[in-house]
Amino acid sequence: MTLQYFDYKYSFSLESGESLPGFRLAYTTRGTLNEEGSNVVWICHALTGNADAGDWWGGMVGSGRYFDPAPPTGTGQFIVCANVLGSCYGSTGPLSVNPATGQPYYHDFPAITIRDMVNALDLLRQELGIEKIHTCIGGSVGGEQALEWAILQPNLIHNLVIIAASAVASPWCIAFNEAQRMAIEADPTWPERRADAGVAGMKAARAMAMISYRNYDTYGFTQALDNNEQLDGYKSASYQRYQGDKLADRFNAFTYWTLSKVMDSHNVGRNRGSILNALGQIKAYTLVVGIRSDLLFPPTEQQFLARHIPNATYEEIDSLYGHDGFLIEFRPLANIIRKWMASAPAEVVKLEEVVRQAK
Amino acid sequence: MTLQYFDYKYSFSLESGESLPGFRLAYTTRGTLNEEGSNVVWICHALTGNADAGDWWGGMVGSGRYFDPAPPTGTGQFIVCANVLGSCYGSTGPLSVNPATGQPYYHDFPAITIRDMVNALDLLRQELGIEKIHTCIGGSVGGEQALEWAILQPNLIHNLVIIAASAVASPWCIAFNEAQRMAIEADPTWPERRADAGVAGMKAARAMAMISYRNYDTYGFTQALDNNEQLDGYKSASYQRYQGDKLADRFNAFTYWTLSKVMDSHNVGRNRGSILNALGQIKAYTLVVGIRSDLLFPPTEQQFLARHIPNATYEEIDSLYGHDGFLIEFRPLANIIRKWMASAPAEVVKLEEVVRQAK
Repeated sequence: MTLQYFDYKYSFSLESGESLPGFRLAYTTRGTLNEEGSNVVWICHALTGNADAGDWWGGMVGSGRYFDPAPPTGTGQFIVCANVLGSCYGSTGPLSVNPATGQPYYHDFPAITIRDMVNALDLLRQELGIEKIHTCIGGSVGGEQALEWAILQPNLIHNLVIIAASAVASPWCIAFNEAQRMAIEADPTWPERRADAGVAGMKAARAMAMISYRNYDTYGFTQALDNNEQLDGYKSASYQRYQGDKLADRFNAFTYWTLSKVMDSHNVGRNRGSILNALGQIKAYTLVVGIRSDLLFPPTEQQFLARHIPNATYEEIDSLYGHDGFLIEFRPLANIIRKWMASAPAEVVKLEEVVRQAK
Repeated sequence: MTLQYFDYKYSFSLESGESLPGFRLAYTTRGTLNEEGSNVVWICHALTGNADAGDWWGGMVGSGRYFDPAPPTGTGQFIVCANVLGSCYGSTGPLSVNPATGQPYYHDFPAITIRDMVNALDLLRQELGIEKIHTCIGGSVGGEQALEWAILQPNLIHNLVIIAASAVASPWCIAFNEAQRMAIEADPTWPERRADAGVAGMKAARAMAMISYRNYDTYGFTQALDNNEQLDGYKSASYQRYQGDKLADRFNAFTYWTLSKVMDSHNVGRNRGSILNALGQIKAYTLVVGIRSDLLFPPTEQQFLARHIPNATYEEIDSLYGHDGFLIEFRPLANIIRKWMASAPAEVVKLEEVVRQAK
C-alpha cells in the first residue's frame, strides 16, 4: 500500500492558541470514489497506528473483509485512512523539521488535541473531494477522532462507529499516561535533541501501557509461569521488555509524549457548554461498541456515549484482550457492525447498497 | 513507639542459594506477653510498610481497636510487628553496610523471597520467647508472609488472617512490577552507588504502582477534572507526581527494587510439590478477605486460597480504594474478623478469652 501525502501550506491554528505553519498528512486510499461520492469509509487509527488500516486492521479491511474496496463483483468501498497530525508515520509531528529553525521540533512541537487532529483530517477530506462519509469508524483514540468529527460536522458523517472510546479522558486514563510520562522523564537522555532521546523511558512507558491495554486474564493465560520452582526470569517480565523494545523499533518518545497528552485533553464538552450538549449535536446513525474486559476505557464510558448520542445503539463484546480487543476481535466486531447496518431505519442508506449501486 | 532491634549474628541462608552474614530486624511490641504466652498477635506489613503497625494501621491497632494491647480493664494482646528483611526502616536491606566491604550493599544486596523474610521473622520470634502466635495477620505482601509462615510452621500460628494476597504472584502482578523496574532502569543515576540513585525512576514506578493499588472509580471520584475547558494540568496527573515525591521522601530505589522482586517470586508451591499441596499443610483456623475492587490481587486469588486451605472462611469487602482498601477499610475489616472469631469452633481459643484470662 503506497503512502500518499497531503501538504497543507497555510497556517493551521491549534486549540492551545499556538499554530503550525502548515502540515503534512500521510494517507492511503483503497478502492475508488464512486460518482455519487457515497461509498466513503474513513478509518481513524489509534495511538501508535498508521495510515495503512489494512496493516493494523487486516481482519476488518481488505478483500473479503467487512470493509472491502474491491469485492469479486462490482465496485467496493472507497476506504481512507490517514496518519494523524503529531504522529511519526509520514505526517507532521515532533520529528518533522520546523520551518522556522530548519531543525526538528523535538520538545518544541506544540500540544495538540483530538479536535486539532480532526481539523487536519477534514482538510485532507476536502482535498480529496469527499463531501460525505458513509461510515466513519475508529477504536480507542481513533474512536475519539470519529466522535469529534461527528460533532464538528454533524452532516458530514452519515454512520458512525465508535469502539472502546470515551467522551472525555477519565482521571484514571490520565493517571496511566502521567505515570508513563514520568518514566520518560526519568530517562536522562530525554532533554536531548535527537530522535532517540528518552527511548529507555518510553520502553518502560510502553510496558506500563500494555497493562492498561490488556488485563489480569490476558497475562494469566498468555504469560503463565514456567513452573513452581522458578525464582526469576518470569515470562510476563520478558514480555514487558519485549513490548518496550518492539515499540522502540518503530516509534519515538517525542511522538509518544505528544500523543499521550492528546489522550489526556480529549473532552468533547470543551467549549461546547457540556459533554451532553456536545453529544446531542451528533446526527449520524451511531454504533458504540464496548469491550467487557477493557480496563482503560471501561464499558461504562461507551454506555454513556450510547445513552447521550441521539441515534445510537450500544453493543458489547467479550475479549480476553481487554482494550486491545478492538485490534483483535475482528469476527465479533464485523458481525456487530453488519447487524447494526442491516437493522438501520429505512432512511439510512446501507453500505451494501452503496456498493451495489456502483456496479 | 520506640523501635527495638534484633541482631542475628550467624550466617543466614537464602532461597537463592546466597547467604547474608547475619541481619538486623527492627520491631515494635505493644502490650505484655502473658504467662501462658497465649496472647500474641503478629502483624506482617506490606511492601513499603514499617515495624510500627499503629502508624500504618491505626484503625486496626491501638486503644479501642480490634487489636488492643491495653483495654481499659485487664491485660490486652501482645502485638508484634517487625520491619521485614530487605526493607529500609531499621532492618537489614540494600542500604545497610555489607560487612564484607564496609560499604552499603546497594545493587549487591542478594535477591530475597517471602520465605526468606519469614525465616528471619521466625528467628526474631524465637528471640522473643514466643512459642505460639494466637493470630497472625497481614494484607498484600504482609498476607503472603503470614501465609508462608503458616505453611512453614503449621503448629505455630493458631489463627490466620490473610487480606488481599495470593498463593502465587500472577503474571499480571509481575508485569506491573517489571514495568516499574524498567522505569527505575531508565533513570541514568540508577547504576550509581549512592542512596538516592534511581529516585526519578522510582517516582515513576510508584505512580504506576498507585494505579494498581487503586482503580478507575478511585481516580474518578477523588481526582475529577476541574472543568470541561482545561487542556492540561489535570488533577490526577499532579496526584501521580505527588505520590512519587511522597515515596521518595521515605524510601529508596534499591529497597523498592528488592521488594518488587520479592513480590514476583512469591509462590507457596515452590519446592513443595504443588500450590495445593502447600496450602493443604496449613492447620490454622483461617480467614481470607478479598476486596471486590482489587485490581492487583483480585478476589479470585483469595477465593482460591479459601478453597484450598483446609479450615478457611472467605469474606469479601467493598471498597472505593481497590487493593489499598486493606489500609483504609478498618471498620468492615474489624467487623469481619470479629464475626469470624466469634463463630470459631469450640476448640479455637478466642482472642477475647485469651485477653480476659490474663486479667
